[in-house]
Parts: sequence; C-alpha cells; structure tokens
Amino acid sequence: MIVVVCLNPALDITHHVTKVDWTGVNRPAAVYARPGGKGTNVARALHSFGLDVILLGLAGGATGGAVEAGLRQLGVPAAFTPAAGETRRTFTVVDGEGRAALFNEPGPEVSAAEFARFLLAYGKAMAGAAAVVLSGSLPRGLPSTAYAELIAVAADAGVPAVLDTSGDALRAGVAAGPAIVKPNLDELRALSEQALSGRSLSAADGGIAWAAVAAAASGLRTAGARAVVVSLGPAGLLAVTGDGCWHARPAAAVRGNATGAGDAVTAALAHGLVLGRSWEDQLRHAVALGTASVAAPVAGEFSRADYAGGLAAVAVRQEAC
Amino acid sequence: MIVVVCLNPALDITHHVTKVDWTGVNRPAAVYARPGGKGTNVARALHSFGLDVILLGLAGGATGGAVEAGLRQLGVPAAFTPAAGETRRTFTVVDGEGRAALFNEPGPEVSAAEFARFLLAYGKAMAGAAAVVLSGSLPRGLPSTAYAELIAVAADAGVPAVLDTSGDALRAGVAAGPAIVKPNLDELRALSEQALSGRSLSAADGGIAWAAVAAAASGLRTAGARAVVVSLGPAGLLAVTGDGCWHARPAAAVRGNATGAGDAVTAALAHGLVLGRSWEDQLRHAVALGTASVAAPVAGEFSRADYAGGLAAVAVRQEAC
Repeated sequence: MIVVVCLNPALDITHHVTKVDWTGVNRPAAVYARPGGKGTNVARALHSFGLDVILLGLAGGATGGAVEAGLRQLGVPAAFTPAAGETRRTFTVVDGEGRAALFNEPGPEVSAAEFARFLLAYGKAMAGAAAVVLSGSLPRGLPSTAYAELIAVAADAGVPAVLDTSGDALRAGVAAGPAIVKPNLDELRALSEQALSGRSLSAADGGIAWAAVAAAASGLRTAGARAVVVSLGPAGLLAVTGDGCWHARPAAAVRGNATGAGDAVTAALAHGLVLGRSWEDQLRHAVALGTASVAAPVAGEFSRADYAGGLAAVAVRQEAC
Repeated sequence: MIVVVCLNPALDITHHVTKVDWTGVNRPAAVYARPGGKGTNVARALHSFGLDVILLGLAGGATGGAVEAGLRQLGVPAAFTPAAGETRRTFTVVDGEGRAALFNEPGPEVSAAEFARFLLAYGKAMAGAAAVVLSGSLPRGLPSTAYAELIAVAADAGVPAVLDTSGDALRAGVAAGPAIVKPNLDELRALSEQALSGRSLSAADGGIAWAAVAAAASGLRTAGARAVVVSLGPAGLLAVTGDGCWHARPAAAVRGNATGAGDAVTAALAHGLVLGRSWEDQLRHAVALGTASVAAPVAGEFSRADYAGGLAAVAVRQEAC
C-alpha cells in the first residue's frame, strides 16, 4: 500500500463564466467542486493505476465533509483525522477564453493535539506501507519539522518517503533522509540561495543553467535526501541520485493546464519506487505522466492513452555528475 | 410564530482581496461564509427582534449542512427538508476599494417529491403561525405556482402571507391572495407591462412616475393581493392598500450595501402585520429598517441604533388613490 499524506486538503471550486463582469453579478454556466490539494492529486493518480493507496490528512467542518464525500465518489480511499478548523476552499473563475483567476483560502490552523492524533493514525498505517508520499505545504500552526517527523516515523518502519514541498518544510524534511525529494526550479532556488552564493539557476539566454541546477540538487543530497528529482516544466526532469544523474525530457512542449503536473510526476516517482524501476524507467514514466496531466483539463487527471503513448517519446540521457 | 420560507438557500462566501489579480493567484486577506438567500436574511432580521421565528426550506449536500450549521451558530431556528441536490453557493470577491464581483451558482433542481415533503412540514408549521413570509426565487424544477400553493395552504389555516419574489412566481402568487406583496420597481415593471400598455414607471427626468407606479400596484391588488408595497430604493416605499395609499421615504439617501435592504423591508412588513400596526407605522418601520440595513456592511444585518434613530426621520404621507 502507498500512504499519501495531505495535511491541508481543499475543496477546489471552479466557476466557468463565459464573459466575466468583474464589478457585477455573474451566473456561471458550469460549476465544479472537487477534492483538491497536492496529496489528493497524487492519490488520485496512484488510485487510477489500480494501486492500493490510502490518503491520510486532516479535515474539518462542512468543507472537510465535502472533500471526504468527493473522494468517496471518486473511489479514492481516505481516512482523515478530524480537525476543529474548517477545511479550506480554493475558488477559480475561468472565462470563455480560458483565463483563470484563483482565490486560495489559507486553510485552518492545526493544533499540536490534532497533529498528534494524525501522527497516531499515520504510524498505524506504516505497518502495511510500501512507500509514503508527503505532498504540499504544511497547514498553519505546525512547525516546519512536521514532515521531518513523518519521514523519521516512516524510516523507523522501513518505509521510503517521497517529499514534495517547499521552503523550511522542505529544508527540514531533506535533513530527515527521504528517498526522493521533488522540488521545482523555484523551490530549489529558494532552498539553495546560500549554497549557490550568487550563481543563478537560469542561463543568460533565460534557459536552464544545467550545471548550477545539478550542483544545487547535489547540495540537497549532501543535506540528507537520497535522490533529488528537479521538475523543470517543459524541460522535463533532472535527477541527481546515488546511482548517477539523468535528464529526462518530453518530445515536445504540450499546451494545457500545468496545475497538477508536478503531482503527476510525484505519483509516478512513488510508483517507480514501489516497483523497483531503474532510474531511467522511473524518469521516463514520470515525464510521460506529467505531460499527459498537462494535456488533461483537470488537475489530478490524465488520459491513459496520452500517458502510454507518450512513454516512447521521452528522451532520457545519463549526465556526468 | 412567524414562518419564513427559503426554498433556495445559499452559502454566501466572501473573499476580501486587497488588490485582485484577475489572471493569477490571489490569497484573500479575509474569508467569510454565511447562510444566505433572501428568506434567510428575513429570518435573521426577525430573530434579532426577539421574535419567535422558524426558517423552512430545502437543503442538501455539504453546502446545505454548512448553511444549517451557520444558522445554528447565529441562533436562528431552522428546519430544512432534506434534498438530494447540493445547496448553492454564492461567491463574492471584494477588493480594497470596495468593488465587488459576484458569482451566483444556480442551485439544485428540486423534485416534485421533495417539494411534497417540504409542503407537509410547512403545513404542520401553519398550526402555530401568526404569519408566513415567502421570499426569493423558486428553485429549478418547481412550477411557478409553488408560492401560490403555499399561500393557499396558509390561507386555509387563517395565516396571512407576505410574498417577495418576481416574474411568473410573483404573478401566480398574487392570484392566490397574499396579505402583502413587495415588488421592487423592476419586478413591478416586468409584471405590469401589459397593464401599463406602454406607460413607463420612470418619469422623463429619470425619477419615479408616481401615478403609473400607483396604477401598476393597484393592478396587482385587482389581481388578488390585498396590499402592495413597492420598494423604490432611496425613494422609499409606495403602499397601495384597501385602507388607502401612502408614500414613505427616508430623510436622506444612505451610502452602503443595498443587498438585503429589500429583505429588511419584508421583515419589517411581516413584523407590522403580526403586531397589527397601522399602515403609517408599518411603513415607517419598514423604511427605517431598510435604511439601517443599507448602512450595515453585511446583508441581513443592521445596527439597532441606526434603526431606532432613523424612525423619527421617515416621512410618511397619505396619497390620493
């Protein structure tokens, strides 16, 4: 079983409004409400592969209930620890030309007692776990070491962890020795500023400064992560591991909705970890799934045909490191 | 007890965003979620007077649960009939300069069986009712005669009805003989087009064509309503009743949030009906409460000091009719 953690889930509400009046009354042509949050997207992707997955986290209030009901409807197994604060909503208005305005509520503050209760449920779930995925920002109220605690509990049970977060939570999490961390370029930059001592991760032509990115990723390995996979948007993935370094890239840039593409990559990495895939295979699947996710209109969804069809087109090259 | 009916309640979600990026990601500085819908505003106002009130309607899904929880928190007694469809949300983004964009979900379709179940609960509530208020648009799926049915059931129990709706639901409701209907100028215009045969309700200078408004209101009396109170925004109220006609106006225009002012007027009319106030008194209270509601930032709320202080300043004049 793969345990996916989403400590700050959301109800993602989307209104499609053909022509938006930003100073008046609008009647949306279509309204969607779906369970959201990065961990939720990861769990949905893993579930769609037929994998045994469970989503753990904290949920509260009517919005928490709506998230749980939505997951039941999707058939994604979830067991949230009850919390006093109301689960957050995100609200997106999409107009007839595809422009989107997003409004992200901050989400509730989580108490130490609530996190302790979650930790007990999480600890029990480790018994049957093949891997754990820790995904998304930490809710307010938790120390930046929360993911580090969860990685340590997993390690004690012999369960490898995949971590996808940012800032201090990523820094503290890296130190706890996760199997894989998956920062994007911005997250890597924010974490590596000191180590880079002024070097930029972007080249003079606006492209990617490969050597600097590899050096920053190596820095996270030195800090504790066993492997670092940097997601570079349309430029693919750069992996720095104990077995070597690879660059995997899609055949061509895909137009679409990049929201959730990183979560698809994280899901594929966890899947590869459980299957014991080679890094080359693992990265090929991760790029293909991320690309298929961009092509699908809804975050956390993808077409199996796009995914399977895209695999052969991914170019994976080992790099010196 | 006053029975207030809200067949299409809502959860009103408001995001305050200092500077809105209409094509990007926003993090609201403040988030509010409150029970909404016109009937809900009326019930809140009546409850704040210490009156024995009960809010009846249909509610479903997690959003329906959130509306019920919000009413409990406000202490407003409510007994919603469960419905399969998810209760609607309204979403308002207010920027730092007070500009507001509203997104109103259509709300669920109500089945005949659900309305029949509601009708049973409504019928039982008539036993102890002094008046009933029917407020807001009808949910999808119901015939335009739904309010007319409710007015007939109330009449059979000797309970007078106050009706605040529009279009075909108003037309059919008027025919059922409510004690008071409260159209605004737009609603009166839409209903009276034929009867007016080209006469406008607006004067050449953009003001109100008093004689035409009085004639249109008289038309609704002829069609069945026992009294017609037309709300005219800052120009106050025009009442056409079996006892005579009156015009009541506030001392001065008030700046603020006009949303919910009509609901405050409806609440005051129901209150006056139960107390047996003279029309003059009733209209004075209705204008003062409507004005106090405009001055308050949240629909359905008002300051008691504004209300009490404004009473003496309302000018009520009997008109020929």
